[in-house]
Amino acid sequence: MKHIVNIKRRALAANDEAAATLRERFRTAGALVVNLISSPGSGKTTLLEATIRRLDNRFTAAVIEGDVATERDADRIRALNVPAHQVLTGGACHLDARQIITALETTNLLPTDVLFIENVGNLICPTTYDLGEDFKVALLSTTEGDDKPFKYPAIFARAEVTVITKIDLLPHLPFDLEAVLDQLKTLNPSAEVVQTSSTTGEGIDEWIELLLARRRAKTA
Amino acid sequence: MKHIVNIKRRALAANDEAAATLRERFRTAGALVVNLISSPGSGKTTLLEATIRRLDNRFTAAVIEGDVATERDADRIRALNVPAHQVLTGGACHLDARQIITALETTNLLPTDVLFIENVGNLICPTTYDLGEDFKVALLSTTEGDDKPFKYPAIFARAEVTVITKIDLLPHLPFDLEAVLDQLKTLNPSAEVVQTSSTTGEGIDEWIELLLARRRAKTA
Repeated sequence: MKHIVNIKRRALAANDEAAATLRERFRTAGALVVNLISSPGSGKTTLLEATIRRLDNRFTAAVIEGDVATERDADRIRALNVPAHQVLTGGACHLDARQIITALETTNLLPTDVLFIENVGNLICPTTYDLGEDFKVALLSTTEGDDKPFKYPAIFARAEVTVITKIDLLPHLPFDLEAVLDQLKTLNPSAEVVQTSSTTGEGIDEWIELLLARRRAKTA
Repeated sequence: MKHIVNIKRRALAANDEAAATLRERFRTAGALVVNLISSPGSGKTTLLEATIRRLDNRFTAAVIEGDVATERDADRIRALNVPAHQVLTGGACHLDARQIITALETTNLLPTDVLFIENVGNLICPTTYDLGEDFKVALLSTTEGDDKPFKYPAIFARAEVTVITKIDLLPHLPFDLEAVLDQLKTLNPSAEVVQTSSTTGEGIDEWIELLLARRRAKTA
């Protein structure tokens, strides 16, 4: 057991080193980098599609997609004329920093104003793997239930931004929004929370303005 | 890298050994054991609640709940007067067979007709960890989108039963049910598929009858 813990610690240390290299590269390129983390089906790709459709040239974007299998998500982004690269992890339940380095070597995603990294659909594994991002964004869809922040506390404590998605479905669901906001405040008092619907467009402009403000702060 | 693969292989071999012990124990006890696997928020606990409410003494049930944090799910089952034990995994993204052995040593969950093991909310990690169960059940909620079986093929290929949950929300969602059924058939042609709504009760009797038939086949 101690052996396994040491192996895991070494893997994380190697990842942190690669992430530091990435962070410097992103800083030089002037790119804001966002690591999107959620359960499968919370609407990460759909949020990116809604964001791109509403961008109106406010920033340039590129996307790295992480999935166990299929190129579907990268195809969806490319269909909107935004450069996207698909990383297939095989069995692995998270992206790691070396995969991002390889992705940058084999593509022309940089320079860009904002690089979105959509992690593998998983609320647990991606939490501890730094990808050199400026901040993590946790997504929680209203359909997943209002107990999730306390059930998966690590990611909601680390994410500087939480996006509550599928807010248009609230009338059809037993979802206590106030309870979720309370849990998020307990886990991370300084986190920003945005409520969105990629279907109706609610909250998408607020999300874009949040990204713009953070990019301005980074490149100022 | 090879070192990590070897460590993982040894961990899985140790787990398989513990699972074989469990399988013999469950056989002796005459208990059908079901390993429920899905994304967070697909409705595993809610399906168990709906099942218990509709059981009408057709079988006795007990539940082992796996979560990263909180006793919420076990509390929900106990509130229905069904014995439940909560396993907290800390950071781990799946249950393992030793945790089930420990749970059985410290509780009186056996004898029971059906033991439900609700795994940690995760479509990836629980796939390769045998818990001595008779079969795995994958849950997929209509709100997660119709591309999920091909995006997480390992679990849908291994699960003998897939339950499509939240079927009552179909009118509000862009979800191509036929596409999902086609993907499931490709990944596992012999799998049984049940469509349920824990809200309206649709499909719950069919699910209970499936469990009864499998228990009869096991104890015959």
